[in-house]
Amino acid sequence: MPSPREASSSLQEKMDEAVAAVNTTMGRLLPDTDDPESPLFQAMRYGVLSGGKRMRPFLLTQSAALFYVDPSRARRAAAAIEFVHCYSLIHDDLPAMDNAELRRGQPTVHRAYDEATAILAGDGLLTFAFEVLSDHETHEDPRVRCELVTQLARAAGPGGMVGGQMLDLIGEKQEFDLGTISRLQRMKTGRLMAFSCEAGAILGRAGEAQRRALCNYAHDLGLAFQVTDDILDVEGNPEDTGKDGGKDARAGKATFVSTMGKDQARQRAEMLVEQAKRHLHIFEHRADTLRELADYVLTRRT
Amino acid sequence: MPSPREASSSLQEKMDEAVAAVNTTMGRLLPDTDDPESPLFQAMRYGVLSGGKRMRPFLLTQSAALFYVDPSRARRAAAAIEFVHCYSLIHDDLPAMDNAELRRGQPTVHRAYDEATAILAGDGLLTFAFEVLSDHETHEDPRVRCELVTQLARAAGPGGMVGGQMLDLIGEKQEFDLGTISRLQRMKTGRLMAFSCEAGAILGRAGEAQRRALCNYAHDLGLAFQVTDDILDVEGNPEDTGKDGGKDARAGKATFVSTMGKDQARQRAEMLVEQAKRHLHIFEHRADTLRELADYVLTRRT
Repeated sequence: MPSPREASSSLQEKMDEAVAAVNTTMGRLLPDTDDPESPLFQAMRYGVLSGGKRMRPFLLTQSAALFYVDPSRARRAAAAIEFVHCYSLIHDDLPAMDNAELRRGQPTVHRAYDEATAILAGDGLLTFAFEVLSDHETHEDPRVRCELVTQLARAAGPGGMVGGQMLDLIGEKQEFDLGTISRLQRMKTGRLMAFSCEAGAILGRAGEAQRRALCNYAHDLGLAFQVTDDILDVEGNPEDTGKDGGKDARAGKATFVSTMGKDQARQRAEMLVEQAKRHLHIFEHRADTLRELADYVLTRRT
Repeated sequence: MPSPREASSSLQEKMDEAVAAVNTTMGRLLPDTDDPESPLFQAMRYGVLSGGKRMRPFLLTQSAALFYVDPSRARRAAAAIEFVHCYSLIHDDLPAMDNAELRRGQPTVHRAYDEATAILAGDGLLTFAFEVLSDHETHEDPRVRCELVTQLARAAGPGGMVGGQMLDLIGEKQEFDLGTISRLQRMKTGRLMAFSCEAGAILGRAGEAQRRALCNYAHDLGLAFQVTDDILDVEGNPEDTGKDGGKDARAGKATFVSTMGKDQARQRAEMLVEQAKRHLHIFEHRADTLRELADYVLTRRT
């Protein structure tokens, strides 16, 4: 078992390496200009490059490694997913949505720039992600690139992340039962998490069983991640998490913690992590890092 | 020459047919649900299906017809482009941007729903457009689908439409010269117009010269369209245009009219239309409808 505060040192090293690598790739990919519209490009960079665990890129590169995918290709796809994740955070933080002032301990994009620039920076990142995925440098086979585009659009679109965010807003005015909260989280975060693993399998032209196993793993992991997020929201240290604590409770949002209580929520997260790891059995020891990552979700403090 | 108020009856008929056809395709493609997140889907439909000239779908289907592309495929690509156009209108109308109350004579999406739903409806439409383009029903060749995705992302992204919108916002606080206004319009509307024609050529696997000719045509047409839009903004009848008249002038935005005066702006539009038509010479009489469309841009009242 890892210590309660940090991932095991070997996992932590791998995660740190992945963060550094994907940050370099994103920094290179993100457009820049001296033209008068440059505040847009600065805001996009600010929204992407100001920290973050890079959980999705890590899932993608680890999944891709199971199939011996060229790491530079995996990093491009990982960057595209992280652009989409960051766009969603920028839009979620807007005054009309969560009205958040801090993200990763720094002013949110609409506070650092302005609301209009934040909306456009999000739009720009989302659009740019598809440009990166469909580029032949991401994969030589256009079939693979198209499959990445289709699956990202499904995971991030109205039937996935955007729909989940809509549910989240509705949940502020309406009490959801546990089933609807689970559905909300599957859509809002689970689908993109699942795609992060699936993208590794797509890049590696994996068989259906392997692809499915990775999706199921990521799905359970994503839900466990969300349950622990809800726990951290009530008991986490804002200095660690970089977020305003208790925000969901103040917004009157039903969370796993408010619905089932902290103890049951923790049990649920543990069960989901065990379930996530079981999906990986077909990869035997090659998936040990993904297993360690699942354990880490239970013990993380940020 | 068409009468000053309407397109020639044959052009008008073709445009009406195209509007009806693409509206049907969009209505079929747009997802719907009874699930609790249904306001998102309603807002997406509202933002797309409440009117509009469907200029981009018309350009696409006419260009595709030059290469005998299956019309049902052209309509799918046309729908995707119109989803992107409509998302851009929804976001441009937001309080943090143009703060518009009316669009096509009806309340804008954030007035009919709310601001958060409007942001998400735009995000959903943009994402969904890529799902439609990358689907094998749009073309059997994944190379063609990938090229559509790449070129749409470039036209709509930070180096295109989103960057143009950023320039537009900056132009409210800063006086632009004619060169920067032209650049703004090329990015904000020209790139997506050009892609509308280019997409027809991509679907039809056209040669480079034909693809280039159509792009150049659409580029000049788009700029002419914008110049006439500026003229209509100062002299148009709000009942015809469905927009608040003089909005740009009140916002202090530099337009072609404010920079060069109405007469010179009209001359510029005429010159652009002539230039647009000249690019079509390689298609001989097969491109007559696109030529008529260019003439129509000069005489339109809405």
